[in-house]
Amino acid sequence: MSEPALDALVDALRRLPGVGVKSAQRMAFHLLQHDRDGARRLAAALEAAVQRMHPCARCHTFTEAEVCATCRDPRRDPKLLAVVETPADQAALERSGSFKGLYYVLMGRLSPLDGVGVEQIGAEGLLARAADGVVEEVILATGFSAEGELTAHALAAALRARGLKVTRLARGVPAGSELEYVDLSTIAHAMGDRR
Amino acid sequence: MSEPALDALVDALRRLPGVGVKSAQRMAFHLLQHDRDGARRLAAALEAAVQRMHPCARCHTFTEAEVCATCRDPRRDPKLLAVVETPADQAALERSGSFKGLYYVLMGRLSPLDGVGVEQIGAEGLLARAADGVVEEVILATGFSAEGELTAHALAAALRARGLKVTRLARGVPAGSELEYVDLSTIAHAMGDRR
Repeated sequence: MSEPALDALVDALRRLPGVGVKSAQRMAFHLLQHDRDGARRLAAALEAAVQRMHPCARCHTFTEAEVCATCRDPRRDPKLLAVVETPADQAALERSGSFKGLYYVLMGRLSPLDGVGVEQIGAEGLLARAADGVVEEVILATGFSAEGELTAHALAAALRARGLKVTRLARGVPAGSELEYVDLSTIAHAMGDRR
Repeated sequence: MSEPALDALVDALRRLPGVGVKSAQRMAFHLLQHDRDGARRLAAALEAAVQRMHPCARCHTFTEAEVCATCRDPRRDPKLLAVVETPADQAALERSGSFKGLYYVLMGRLSPLDGVGVEQIGAEGLLARAADGVVEEVILATGFSAEGELTAHALAAALRARGLKVTRLARGVPAGSELEYVDLSTIAHAMGDRR
C-alpha cells in the first residue's frame, strides 16, 4: 500500500521487544481505527518518560528524581545491597516483599560474545557504591541464565576482593511446582543446597 | 516504585492489542534502558500517523491522500468490489495477489451484543459505494467467525436488494494442511462446496 506514515509507525512498533511484523501491523491498524486517543496518549507518555526518567544517582534504576524513592527511604536497611540486571528484575524482587535493603541496577548482564563486558554493565559504579563503608552484604540477584551466572561470578570475585560479604539468591524448586515436572538440574541444585 | 512518568508509559503501552502488564513493563524498561532513540521515533511515528492518516474517501482504508493508491490505480478492475472488516484484512488479501478489483473497508464487523450495528460498521457507505453503476460484483471477504458471517449475511441481503451480484470467499481446507488435523466443520464445508 506504500503509505509512508503507516510504514514508519509499523517499523517503530516492531522495535518493541516481542513485537513482530504482524503484531506491529495489528497494533498500528488498531490505534488508527479504534484508539487514536490511545495513540496520542502513548506518544505523549513516550516523550515524557524519555525526557524525565533517568538513572538514580545511587542505584541506577529509573527515576524522575535525583535519587529514587527506594534509595531515599529511611526504613530500608543500608547494610544490604541487592544487585539486579534490570529495573524489571528490581520490580519483581520488590513485589516479592522479601527484601528490605537497597538495590544496585546493572545495565544488563555480561555477554562476552556480544562485546558486553564489565564496563558496559556498569560494574565500576557498583564497586564504588558497595564501598561506601555502610554496605556489609551484597546479594547477587542476577538471573540464573548462563550469562546471569557469569555476571554473578565476575562481580563476586571483585566484591570479595574488597572485603565484602557476597551472597547469591538460592537456587531450588519453584514454589507450587510438582517435582515430577521440575528440570533435573534444578532438582540437583535443590538437593545440593537442601536445608 | 510509583514513578508517574513510568506508570503512564506502562498504562499507555497496555492499551496496545495483545499487550498485558508484564509485556508493557518489559517494553517500557527496554525503551528507557536500551532504545531511547526508538522511543522518540515511536512517539513521532504515532503523532505523524494520527495526524496524517485518515480514511480514503472511496474505500475507507487508511491513507495520507484524499483517495488511496489502490482506488486511484487504473489497472484495478472497478467492476469488482471486495468488502473486508479491517485494513489489515485488506493487506492480507493484497499479499495473496489473488484479487485485482477494488476494496471497501468496513469499520469492523457486526456485534449486536456489544451494540455494534450496521450503522457503526459503515454499511451505508458501502451501499452508496456499491451503487456507483460500475460495480457489478461484491465479494464479501469478512471473516469466518460468527460475527464475520453475520456481517456477510446482513450485507448480502442489502446488496442483493439493490440488484448487485454478491459472492463470498470460499470456505475449505487451508493450503498445506493434513485432513487429519482440520476441524470437522471445515471438512464438512469443503465437502459441501467440492468442485
